[in-house]
Amino acid sequence: MDKTTRGRQIPKEPIEGPFTLFLWGEERFKRRKSILKAFAANPIFSKTSVVVPSLARKDVWTRAALQARELIRLKLTEDWSHVQFMEAIRLTDNMLPVQPQFRIFLSNLERQMSDEQKAIWAPKAERFEIFGSYAQTELGHGSNVRGLETTATFDKERDEFVINSPTLSSTKYWIGTTGVWATHSIVVARLIVDGEEYGNHLFLTQIRELDTQRLMPGVEIYELGPKAFQGMLGTDNGAMQFHNVRIPRSQMLARNAQVLQDGTYIKPKNEKHSYGSMVTVRAIMAESTGWDLLKAVAVAYHYTTFRKQFRKDGNQQEETTVIEYASVKHRLVPLLAQATALVLVGQKIKRAYDEYTADYIKTGDFSQLEDFHLQTVGAKVYSTEITGHGVETCRIACGGHGYHALSGFGRMYANSINAVTYEGDNYVVGQQVPRAILKHWRGKTEGSFPTLSYLSKLRDRSQLSMPEIESEQDWLRPKVQRWALEERLMNLVQQHIEDTEAGRDTSYACHALTMAHGDFVYWKGFEELLSELEGQQTAFVKPVKALFNAFALSVLQNPHHASLASALPLSQAQHKTLRLAKSAVIEEITTNHLADVIEAYGFTEFELDSALARSDKNPYEALFEEGAVRSEMSGNGMSHLWPMMVDTRNMWRRIEEEKAGKAKL
Amino acid sequence: MDKTTRGRQIPKEPIEGPFTLFLWGEERFKRRKSILKAFAANPIFSKTSVVVPSLARKDVWTRAALQARELIRLKLTEDWSHVQFMEAIRLTDNMLPVQPQFRIFLSNLERQMSDEQKAIWAPKAERFEIFGSYAQTELGHGSNVRGLETTATFDKERDEFVINSPTLSSTKYWIGTTGVWATHSIVVARLIVDGEEYGNHLFLTQIRELDTQRLMPGVEIYELGPKAFQGMLGTDNGAMQFHNVRIPRSQMLARNAQVLQDGTYIKPKNEKHSYGSMVTVRAIMAESTGWDLLKAVAVAYHYTTFRKQFRKDGNQQEETTVIEYASVKHRLVPLLAQATALVLVGQKIKRAYDEYTADYIKTGDFSQLEDFHLQTVGAKVYSTEITGHGVETCRIACGGHGYHALSGFGRMYANSINAVTYEGDNYVVGQQVPRAILKHWRGKTEGSFPTLSYLSKLRDRSQLSMPEIESEQDWLRPKVQRWALEERLMNLVQQHIEDTEAGRDTSYACHALTMAHGDFVYWKGFEELLSELEGQQTAFVKPVKALFNAFALSVLQNPHHASLASALPLSQAQHKTLRLAKSAVIEEITTNHLADVIEAYGFTEFELDSALARSDKNPYEALFEEGAVRSEMSGNGMSHLWPMMVDTRNMWRRIEEEKAGKAKL
Repeated sequence: MDKTTRGRQIPKEPIEGPFTLFLWGEERFKRRKSILKAFAANPIFSKTSVVVPSLARKDVWTRAALQARELIRLKLTEDWSHVQFMEAIRLTDNMLPVQPQFRIFLSNLERQMSDEQKAIWAPKAERFEIFGSYAQTELGHGSNVRGLETTATFDKERDEFVINSPTLSSTKYWIGTTGVWATHSIVVARLIVDGEEYGNHLFLTQIRELDTQRLMPGVEIYELGPKAFQGMLGTDNGAMQFHNVRIPRSQMLARNAQVLQDGTYIKPKNEKHSYGSMVTVRAIMAESTGWDLLKAVAVAYHYTTFRKQFRKDGNQQEETTVIEYASVKHRLVPLLAQATALVLVGQKIKRAYDEYTADYIKTGDFSQLEDFHLQTVGAKVYSTEITGHGVETCRIACGGHGYHALSGFGRMYANSINAVTYEGDNYVVGQQVPRAILKHWRGKTEGSFPTLSYLSKLRDRSQLSMPEIESEQDWLRPKVQRWALEERLMNLVQQHIEDTEAGRDTSYACHALTMAHGDFVYWKGFEELLSELEGQQTAFVKPVKALFNAFALSVLQNPHHASLASALPLSQAQHKTLRLAKSAVIEEITTNHLADVIEAYGFTEFELDSALARSDKNPYEALFEEGAVRSEMSGNGMSHLWPMMVDTRNMWRRIEEEKAGKAKL
Repeated sequence: MDKTTRGRQIPKEPIEGPFTLFLWGEERFKRRKSILKAFAANPIFSKTSVVVPSLARKDVWTRAALQARELIRLKLTEDWSHVQFMEAIRLTDNMLPVQPQFRIFLSNLERQMSDEQKAIWAPKAERFEIFGSYAQTELGHGSNVRGLETTATFDKERDEFVINSPTLSSTKYWIGTTGVWATHSIVVARLIVDGEEYGNHLFLTQIRELDTQRLMPGVEIYELGPKAFQGMLGTDNGAMQFHNVRIPRSQMLARNAQVLQDGTYIKPKNEKHSYGSMVTVRAIMAESTGWDLLKAVAVAYHYTTFRKQFRKDGNQQEETTVIEYASVKHRLVPLLAQATALVLVGQKIKRAYDEYTADYIKTGDFSQLEDFHLQTVGAKVYSTEITGHGVETCRIACGGHGYHALSGFGRMYANSINAVTYEGDNYVVGQQVPRAILKHWRGKTEGSFPTLSYLSKLRDRSQLSMPEIESEQDWLRPKVQRWALEERLMNLVQQHIEDTEAGRDTSYACHALTMAHGDFVYWKGFEELLSELEGQQTAFVKPVKALFNAFALSVLQNPHHASLASALPLSQAQHKTLRLAKSAVIEEITTNHLADVIEAYGFTEFELDSALARSDKNPYEALFEEGAVRSEMSGNGMSHLWPMMVDTRNMWRRIEEEKAGKAKL
């Protein structure tokens, strides 16, 4: 087996090794192993027993609901942690109806409820005695939370809140797990006391009866209907309206703000607490998103190291393996490098946030929350852009068979590209990065924000003079990479300042700035990790270093926005050295490291879930047997329509006779 | 109604007007009108009577097959032309099983059969007495036609060809309409006579019995299974193997090459005939692709002129319509301009090819075929890249509701992005453009090729000196636009020549060159059209000119590859003028022309098929009523699962009891 293709063995179970443990993290690897073991023993989780994309939507959801039930059983019997439970959901085909239970329902109860409230509700949620959802977005209101219309009016007489949906556009919409499954929902509504408005607050509202699953009085819910690309088939998103729905006063989440029995409103001590929920979800996204891209790259690797097409050299007997073509490896290797940056640096961000958050809920020390907010919003935008579009690039690089549903790319794209929209549309929430840059630029406060420390160089551009760049080799110097990333970032910051001062609408252009910021932040985080590794002299420092260079040079040479290319002032000769340096790194990885890296990630066939990556069949065998031979439309599957087809082929005769008859008349 | 939103009225029927007729072309508009009328009268074509994305795949295909039958009836009774029939297919939800009948089956019979053969078979195909398909691609062989493995061996004794699939990888794969529907297929196979190989030829092969729809002896067919994103639901692609299938000698398509009864092989007079089929299909694609993008832009326009979010100015009462944001209009307006270039210039290419092709089959004059080959392959790559990714950009610009299947974007993307792969993967067939450039550069023969005439400027770079570019206004001068497009094209050609001479693999980098070539070709074609219009002083010359400028400046400032940005040597100050000039054009279009242009295209609600663009409901009403209220999972739709959910919520108690019991033991 040659060096390029050694990683083509697809394991049935996770295989341990030092490089693997570095990439996955030891704890994560352990959890993954036990989840995969539990899944292998339970046929409901099988990914090959049904052809999901051929089924009617409600049949797929039914399967997801039964999987959710089994996952709950597993969590309760095996005492899985919340993290393990959430990771198990990700290992199923789609999001499941239980997905919001910990990710957003319980995490909000914990963050926003008073201790007394938590003592009652958190155990119920933890043991799934209630099924929870989080109802924020409305039909007419997404990113702009202040525009929400749902009201919660305090009724002093009865010590209750009355929840109402005053308009069609106030219908709670896209609410995950609410169409069929949830019994309780945290409803975001404008608090009204004695005719006075106090803005949005959270209200725990029962929406279905626990012992029948019927809707509670005044609650009107519909399941939302299908999503684009067969996305999120396991989620029953809901459309929900409230008609004078009453809940006790004790169900307003009261950690920060409260309403007393007499109607006194006690306002929150700190406004920043409202960040918390978003920051947490985005921190989870920062950590998990890159894995979706890695799986797509792994499937593409397995296929493109198998598939042969054309002869590169006319004399060859065999056709050339397609990964050997620049057109294939130049698309896949940069994505492998970028995905690696996403997971390694994403884990760092998540870990730091977890450590911080363990404290701040108790201590009320919100001082670092703004920096974490900035880090996670940047990471969310950056990682979801690269992942969503990257998955699709992998599919397209696989040619025709990538378009077969059983390649799995369609499912991966459908379930990852939506992340550029949810938890804040990237063009909208992405603006928070430039906004923070501007604020700290003007206030000269970047020193207190680790994430923005680069701004100091903009104040003194002499710090940024161009290093010597004359050869391909120069581009492998961290100093050169850093200069290039900072230089174009500075130019975009400069442009953003000018645009803002000129009163221009920056909402389009600043997306590029947010991505350039991400390039630099991830490069810096990756470089720190690499330095640590180099200190430890591990065996796998070489492939990691090669991936680091491929990350840096690919985001410089083929950036996510064309405006990043024009913001980097290089001579044509320097552009050429950059291009050739990138090619050389891609070449080095393909020849020496690619198989090792794929092997180290070591996704099992269950995780990849693709006919292009089976352990015991090659892609052609799998496509033929699982796609074609098993198709429900093969054989006699559609034979009830055969007489119609035969009849259609005779139609011309009848029509000609009719026409002839008419002509005679 | 203000100027931006006037085009928001969505017509139920096509509305005639001079601008509309210019955009559509008079003939095309007429055909469209009569197709839409016929569809409105026939409930099988209704797009609102079922929610397609929620159905099982085979139920959707069944509907498509019934639509195919009705279309055949309409064609035969109303004497529709082939073009009209093909356009009618495009107006249904998905490709239908009859799609290949004229597009590739009959067109090949006509081009590749002898006159005697045609007299027998063409009428059968025209009146749908037989259902046809075209079987070229194999499981292991796509772009490289020479790698095909299927054989057709001449049996002199019985005057027959024997067709065989020697390996799994030789299975004919992705063969449209072959999984269930087709009775005959044009099979591409290696001709073998007396042990000698003569390369690929075409063989008309009956694959199913006409009066039963059962498979013919020795023919093994499976339907291929589902496609990514629920794409092409109406097409029953097939996997087909031949086991000693015999056809008479008279069914080898014999216009060009022939096998005589004694086994003598008469080789084709001209090798170029083999281009024909590809050129024809790509010419159709060049003309039709842009319309898919236009529909997506129109839906996004209707939604983003309705949707409001945030207040731009803190004092406003109402939220701002989202099209007002740069982040929205800078994504949509360039696509409107680019799609307009695609349809206007694409029509020109198609028209010229049709005029030429009407002759060359008879006269055998293949002299211009190479130029048309180059034009159509360039147009195919260029138009499908812009359209596929552009449709998805429209969806994402619409935020959360763009992800609802009923927005229609998912269907549009699924059925347009595959075109970057079929009829030649863009990275593979796209190489034919640089290859031709190189050939004519080396041979100094660009003078004879209208499409490559720009190469003469590379020989004498003094022809390309930079014009004065100092202000935004300068970018509106055609001379400046032309210079910029040619300059970067030249730089990429130069780079391609260097890379080739250095023996580098250019298969990745040259995709950018192909796109830069397309930018210039479409710009030139668009400019010629604009000049004609200016000569005629039509009322709509202003919006067309604004779109022309938006096309030019958007492909220059935000090109399809970052390497195009670095190939255009501008100073930072010039980059800035370009960026501001593009903004100004987008602003002008949004304020003064957008509504007019959308109104002139005038897609009906049937054509748009989106809950975001209904004539009698706003997007919120349509999403709520058609998406949620009608969902098969709403109400009691899933009530059979309610007891399971109730039981799951009680699981914790049983498990705790069990654990307690075990602990006692």
